[in-house]
Amino acid sequence: MRQKNNIKEKLIQNAIEQISSRSYTSVGVQELCNLSGVTKGGFYHHFKSKEGLTLAAIDSIWGSYKKTILGPVFNSDIPTLEKFNLLIETVYIHYVSQKEAQGHMCGCRLGNLAIELSTQNERIREKLEEIFQNWVDYFEQALNEAVTTGELPINTDTKKSAQSILAFLQGLVLIGKTNDDPDFMKNLSRAVLNLILDSKQQKITIKEN
Amino acid sequence: MRQKNNIKEKLIQNAIEQISSRSYTSVGVQELCNLSGVTKGGFYHHFKSKEGLTLAAIDSIWGSYKKTILGPVFNSDIPTLEKFNLLIETVYIHYVSQKEAQGHMCGCRLGNLAIELSTQNERIREKLEEIFQNWVDYFEQALNEAVTTGELPINTDTKKSAQSILAFLQGLVLIGKTNDDPDFMKNLSRAVLNLILDSKQQKITIKEN
Repeated sequence: MRQKNNIKEKLIQNAIEQISSRSYTSVGVQELCNLSGVTKGGFYHHFKSKEGLTLAAIDSIWGSYKKTILGPVFNSDIPTLEKFNLLIETVYIHYVSQKEAQGHMCGCRLGNLAIELSTQNERIREKLEEIFQNWVDYFEQALNEAVTTGELPINTDTKKSAQSILAFLQGLVLIGKTNDDPDFMKNLSRAVLNLILDSKQQKITIKEN
Repeated sequence: MRQKNNIKEKLIQNAIEQISSRSYTSVGVQELCNLSGVTKGGFYHHFKSKEGLTLAAIDSIWGSYKKTILGPVFNSDIPTLEKFNLLIETVYIHYVSQKEAQGHMCGCRLGNLAIELSTQNERIREKLEEIFQNWVDYFEQALNEAVTTGELPINTDTKKSAQSILAFLQGLVLIGKTNDDPDFMKNLSRAVLNLILDSKQQKITIKEN
């Protein structure tokens, strides 16, 4: 059983790595089998198709983002607002490492799939829409907690703020990938704090401690 | 001569449409020749490769953005700050039309290519980096003019503001594409105004007229 799970996991990890360093369309099942030391029969024992493998890969990527980036940042013992600044800095460091390891800044593995496949594969698009909604919910919950503790005023529009922050983050990564240089992101890390908004989409004025 | 230019233009327009509704990798030269009523010989008379055609397509897309979106918005006779809000609203309307015409929200044609190809094609990546820099310069110039006229304070960091605004815009489009629904963008149109920043990346306080 462990052997089977190892094969499945190996296929998922190779798919994540190959797709994020190139694209979904340019990676083939045979190539993933070769890299994973699996026959095609072995592949189709675990996944119905490249699409099925990619859906599993998306869950794995999101799990990894929560475990290695969002968890450590949002469970840290600092004021909520600083967490959003720390988030951008942590993502920046993540992409510096990615570039060192893979030779390129490959960008957000979920954003990449969303851009490449949203018009072409409805199941993958729906899955990514759901994950992005979970991501917004994650930010929104952190902001709601800050409203509860009085750190943010009660007129904070935590939903729109969370949506704006995810959009800004994805855009920073997109341009960083285009520049093949994460510095673009680092230089704008504090700008994210301006996207904590009230109901009129105006910046929240934070009370000083 | 006009016949030749028509063929070239037809290839460029078909490339833009096919690539933006699917992806670069999934579109072939033969298919573009068929759609354009051109032989392969005719194709290679005008372009060395699909890459060459795509580089020409990128210039065409950027020219079109300037002509149909940026020009009308930034030449309009309204305060500079309102122009950035109008920009997001204009882009929103552009994507509503795109979805009606193409059946999907296909997203930013430049952002799509940047995400798909930046790790795979250095010439296209460099071209897109240059265009994004031109785009930032475009925003920066509008903000500099607003500083000159006194509409914005002199401590405005017009470069970082322009970079933040482009990142936010690209992120809004990315998530709109993932949702196959431009409403995400419309609901956050005013948030862009919070990204006009001072040297500490804090929101600029605008003096009231």
